[in-house]
Amino acid sequence: MNTTYAYAAPDAASKLAPFELQRRAPRDHDVQMDVLFCGVCHSDLHTARNEWKNTVYPAVPGHEIVGRVTAVGPQVSNYKVGDLVGVGCLVDSCRTCPSCKEGLEQYCEAGFVGTYNGQDRETGENTYGGYSTALVVDEAFVLRVPKNLDPAGVAPLLCAGITTYSPLRQWGAGPGRKVGIVGLGGLGHMGVKLAHAMGAHVVLFTTSTSKIEDAKRLGADEVVISRNPDEMAAHANSFDLIVNTVAAPHDLNPFINLLRRDGTMTLVGAPEHDHPSPQVFNLIMKRRRLAGSLIGGIAETQEMLDFCGEHGITSDIEMIPMQKINDAYERMLKSDVKYRFVIDIDSMRK
Amino acid sequence: MNTTYAYAAPDAASKLAPFELQRRAPRDHDVQMDVLFCGVCHSDLHTARNEWKNTVYPAVPGHEIVGRVTAVGPQVSNYKVGDLVGVGCLVDSCRTCPSCKEGLEQYCEAGFVGTYNGQDRETGENTYGGYSTALVVDEAFVLRVPKNLDPAGVAPLLCAGITTYSPLRQWGAGPGRKVGIVGLGGLGHMGVKLAHAMGAHVVLFTTSTSKIEDAKRLGADEVVISRNPDEMAAHANSFDLIVNTVAAPHDLNPFINLLRRDGTMTLVGAPEHDHPSPQVFNLIMKRRRLAGSLIGGIAETQEMLDFCGEHGITSDIEMIPMQKINDAYERMLKSDVKYRFVIDIDSMRK
Ligand SMILES: [Zn+2]
Ligand SMILES: [Zn+2]
Ligand SMILES: [Zn+2]
Ligand SMILES: [Zn+2]
Repeated sequence: MNTTYAYAAPDAASKLAPFELQRRAPRDHDVQMDVLFCGVCHSDLHTARNEWKNTVYPAVPGHEIVGRVTAVGPQVSNYKVGDLVGVGCLVDSCRTCPSCKEGLEQYCEAGFVGTYNGQDRETGENTYGGYSTALVVDEAFVLRVPKNLDPAGVAPLLCAGITTYSPLRQWGAGPGRKVGIVGLGGLGHMGVKLAHAMGAHVVLFTTSTSKIEDAKRLGADEVVISRNPDEMAAHANSFDLIVNTVAAPHDLNPFINLLRRDGTMTLVGAPEHDHPSPQVFNLIMKRRRLAGSLIGGIAETQEMLDFCGEHGITSDIEMIPMQKINDAYERMLKSDVKYRFVIDIDSMRK
Repeated sequence: MNTTYAYAAPDAASKLAPFELQRRAPRDHDVQMDVLFCGVCHSDLHTARNEWKNTVYPAVPGHEIVGRVTAVGPQVSNYKVGDLVGVGCLVDSCRTCPSCKEGLEQYCEAGFVGTYNGQDRETGENTYGGYSTALVVDEAFVLRVPKNLDPAGVAPLLCAGITTYSPLRQWGAGPGRKVGIVGLGGLGHMGVKLAHAMGAHVVLFTTSTSKIEDAKRLGADEVVISRNPDEMAAHANSFDLIVNTVAAPHDLNPFINLLRRDGTMTLVGAPEHDHPSPQVFNLIMKRRRLAGSLIGGIAETQEMLDFCGEHGITSDIEMIPMQKINDAYERMLKSDVKYRFVIDIDSMRK
């Protein structure tokens, strides 16, 4: 057992605070790592505050993790001490269901084991995430981090990156395709970078004129202010794909109407309250599709990391020490971050 | 010009009544036909009563048409006098847009010309449909009717048949696939027959226990009473495809939850008022899709007719004389028909 320093939410109403936990000794297939950086995802906050009504306390969030391997179990073949590795939203799954067999562990029919607030499949214990100095994870759920990338900027790729990469790949973003990204936050700014690197014509939709310049810097070919009906109308029936990263309830019809025939809008954020109902007529008349997408599988996450390595892509981040996490949550709620907070885990070692 | 006997709605509030109209002399590419049978579609009633607020009066409905060729224009190469032919929902389109080029004329970017309540592309005149003794249509929008089928039972294939055939084909209904059909009306009963003939495992969803026996006779492997949560739960996460033919607003979530990962529910009926909003969470967690589909293109409609010829498939119909159309509308509103009214157009010739 290894004593690990962490930050935990003790209950739904309290701020995160220092917490000590024990990581298991590596099992046969386990990789043990020192956590170096951990991104701050909205899911962390939802879980810390029990907004999904399923939090087990104390809760240690964090599933955008970059670390350095410090030990490996006797059966580990793919990683060795000193390797730079990543861990995302999943640390285990049943491995036998059709989704697991196809490498889509995020859709495991038995339910995947979350990196935090999950249940270890052997012990049943609550899992603790990356707001901690060390982590022990089965090698099947460990990713390799490209050496040429800034490791702090890699951390958000493990959730925000793969969440947008997966639907872009699934629906064929690439040269000759017109791709929309709705919202320029943690997810959206990754969507813009990735779709641009894939060679698509990228249009960023935002409600805020203040984001136009930044969106173009990140790779958007065009920026549309979505509350301006004239700007929207100019793009009617023209998108192959729209990845909608906005979880707040909003009218989907203006975006659906921008899809060409057989176009798809993929939703990657689940609103707490439903969006207004989309009009069926708009789906029927152009054979359009409304779909959902959940992070990505392990193989696809590695593919995404390798893609980011080839194209020099990382997240735009603001680094914070662990001690500032509660402030960061408040700023995240106000979208006051460009575009992802990343915790310097060394701040807990000093 | 040819005097043609028809039934027309003179305005939104009046019943359909006898009406005389002139069909154009065949143009170079036109096929002139005597109409033999015409199916009665809900769209006919919506148009007659101006429920879509776009009806031009007098309105002559009917777009499930089987006829016999009586003359052809000098450039017609595919049809000759005496041929048994069909006409569906479209009689023209721009023919140059990407959708037309791909044989998906129903999605013509310029808007297709409806068989009734459309605008002739040469003259701008209102089009009159199949509730009439004769019709003149460009051969590019004329279908060939298989000789082995009852021509009266073929008529509903031209709308109800192709509307369900197209999404079944698009989303891969066939052996090893589990396909749901929601609703056992004019569309639904064709969906059951076609999906069964394609080799899929077919489950019919209905709210009425009285339809169980008939659904099985038509080809359903199973029937689920959709208001029974236990019956629904037994099919969770198991459908590759659900074709939802119910246009009345209803909760889509119980059906979406029956889709397996990457499964699709296609809506083929547009409700007057929106369905309650589907939950995004249910789309995200299994990467499910909600889609729409509109009738089918001309090539696919011919493919569907040939498929029906091979498999001996026609619609279950109740034949009526033209003079009974107003009664038929009232009964259709009560779903009191198994499963499609077809007008014997000869009733206007006697
Ligand atoms: Zn996340
Ligand atoms: Zn599994
Ligand atoms: Zn119809
Ligand atoms: Zn066209």
